[in-house]
Amino acid sequence: MTGPRFTPLIAALPSSVPFVGPETQERAMGHAFAARLGANENGFGPSPRAIAAMAAAAGEVWKYGDPENFELKSALARLHGCRPENIVVGEGIDGLLGYLARLVLAPGDAVVTSEGAYPTFNFHVAGCGGVLHKVPYAGDFEDPEALIARARAVAPKLIYIANPDNPMGSAHSGARLAAMVDQVPDGSLLILDEAYVELAPEGTAAPVDPDDRRVIRMRTFSKAHGMAGARVGYAIGAAPLIAAFDKIRNHFGMGRIAQAGALAALADTTWLAYMRRLIGASRDRIGQIARDNGLVPLPSATNFVAVDCGADGAFARAVLQALAAEGIFVRMPGVAPLDRCIRISCGPEPEMAALAAALPRAVAAARDLPPR
Amino acid sequence: MTGPRFTPLIAALPSSVPFVGPETQERAMGHAFAARLGANENGFGPSPRAIAAMAAAAGEVWKYGDPENFELKSALARLHGCRPENIVVGEGIDGLLGYLARLVLAPGDAVVTSEGAYPTFNFHVAGCGGVLHKVPYAGDFEDPEALIARARAVAPKLIYIANPDNPMGSAHSGARLAAMVDQVPDGSLLILDEAYVELAPEGTAAPVDPDDRRVIRMRTFSKAHGMAGARVGYAIGAAPLIAAFDKIRNHFGMGRIAQAGALAALADTTWLAYMRRLIGASRDRIGQIARDNGLVPLPSATNFVAVDCGADGAFARAVLQALAAEGIFVRMPGVAPLDRCIRISCGPEPEMAALAAALPRAVAAARDLPPR
Repeated sequence: MTGPRFTPLIAALPSSVPFVGPETQERAMGHAFAARLGANENGFGPSPRAIAAMAAAAGEVWKYGDPENFELKSALARLHGCRPENIVVGEGIDGLLGYLARLVLAPGDAVVTSEGAYPTFNFHVAGCGGVLHKVPYAGDFEDPEALIARARAVAPKLIYIANPDNPMGSAHSGARLAAMVDQVPDGSLLILDEAYVELAPEGTAAPVDPDDRRVIRMRTFSKAHGMAGARVGYAIGAAPLIAAFDKIRNHFGMGRIAQAGALAALADTTWLAYMRRLIGASRDRIGQIARDNGLVPLPSATNFVAVDCGADGAFARAVLQALAAEGIFVRMPGVAPLDRCIRISCGPEPEMAALAAALPRAVAAARDLPPR
Repeated sequence: MTGPRFTPLIAALPSSVPFVGPETQERAMGHAFAARLGANENGFGPSPRAIAAMAAAAGEVWKYGDPENFELKSALARLHGCRPENIVVGEGIDGLLGYLARLVLAPGDAVVTSEGAYPTFNFHVAGCGGVLHKVPYAGDFEDPEALIARARAVAPKLIYIANPDNPMGSAHSGARLAAMVDQVPDGSLLILDEAYVELAPEGTAAPVDPDDRRVIRMRTFSKAHGMAGARVGYAIGAAPLIAAFDKIRNHFGMGRIAQAGALAALADTTWLAYMRRLIGASRDRIGQIARDNGLVPLPSATNFVAVDCGADGAFARAVLQALAAEGIFVRMPGVAPLDRCIRISCGPEPEMAALAAALPRAVAAARDLPPR
């Protein structure tokens, strides 16, 4: 009895997960975090209209969601000035990145990204046997020119960049990204991950023709719209590329409640404007807390702040672990030199107060560590 | 500007979708169906406790769902007398079938299923380049012995069977399926799709050791639990196989509302018992409506009834189209001889009354068609 025969690709893949959830840590600790500020969730929550729409849809959940996501795609097309044929809706940007990797990557195909950029993208590339080529950040920014230069060298199927960036919170102008699109080599596709762009300064969204075949943009309801647990992402791109998702996607994968919530959230532009103000104020609050503890907050165009702890990755990790022991969940970048920072998500004042109370003790605890 | 380069597999795949949703037909018609009886949804709806849990979770949807689905897996493990390591939760059985296909199928790999069985499974096999080998039904039943015989001949990576069966509604005893498991050839994995098993007679669920490496069972909250639009499926199998899903799955793909709803539905065993009675009565009601129109309802172990229209596929399709024109959404099997039937989902009395009113006209309209 041999059991199933995995593909050679799967058999060789390590059993890694891109992120461990806070619930796993909570189960290990035996209690919940007091402040959940690690996953760039939006603790200010979704629009009350979206909550009401989702609660109402719960009674209708015996129906499958529309597999074409027609109403949501139509609303998104109006928002972005394109056709529904330019939009695919999926189970978060994560789900869409997984589908896209499958569409273009065969084992051995090259992919270009940044050292320290989104681990879940790398996970999906590995899952298709793609080979990652990484360029360093330029300071605390992803480096469009370096990404393009590497792409010219390795002829990748995919190039990945996030603007604004995660985990550093930095952003380039949309104009600079549009210029990057113009440099994408023939045969490569640029993934422009704009998960946080609704929270960035005016002019950060790249002015890109939705029918431009060189680029696919990814958006989400998880951040500005506060609906991470509803799992709604979408991509904007040329119609032939968007149509190809239908060849492999889970057609009924979008839940009916999620569809209803996203549609209501999209319509509540007042709430989105309010959210931008709340998150702007929360960024300032995190910055002040950081400075009060002798740490340096980096400028942020997102709903989180990368806080430079002023030393190396080991020190930042010690601060993070001391915060966790105090009941504060935060995360940090995975590679040097970005990992001198911890990454703190914006949130309501009770969580900020808990952070403010815990951070002095956490920094002190980290400083008391014996030298390595 | 060439745009993205798809993999050879994707470039060669036809743009097919496994099912068109009723919403697509409704948009074409310009009005909604009066009775939604085509997708084997459960119009009696989910447990009120599940609805309440989902409505409550809507306010918490700013949080990602636990990527380990720990609470739900633990509850399912208690139900099935296994360990959480034997269970993977995913975006419906559809989502899990897609992951499983990716885990084992490389282009050219053989797969065995039945002619007329679940199209979405075939879709995922094609999406991985698998080669389908199909055996005919034995009457209105899938044929375990024929599936095993074909498997001995082609050494497939996967063998698919649904018990109870969709689209015919027939069921074998669990003992017969357990005997089938004992015949699975080395190197093949049997997928036992038990989407409808909670609605079948006692003894239909196969008595299978969860750690048996030859079989993976699939279950769902879409049918008996009435939560199709929440997208929650799970699979039960040997721990090494279950662990492999972590290599490729969308770890945060399960929404928080869906998790909460499934957990509440699972706890409400009273509702499930009530549902079995409601659906049993609805099967009888559909049977009577069919007989009243001179049609023959097939015995059903599911929440739908395959109704033999007494002629060929063209006639059944004419009945189906006439029903659609009357506002009644039903579906039918895709291949002969199964396609002499239409497939009608159970539902509340208003939908049954609409069906009873429309079916005589639909049958008459089909009979009035000019001979082909």
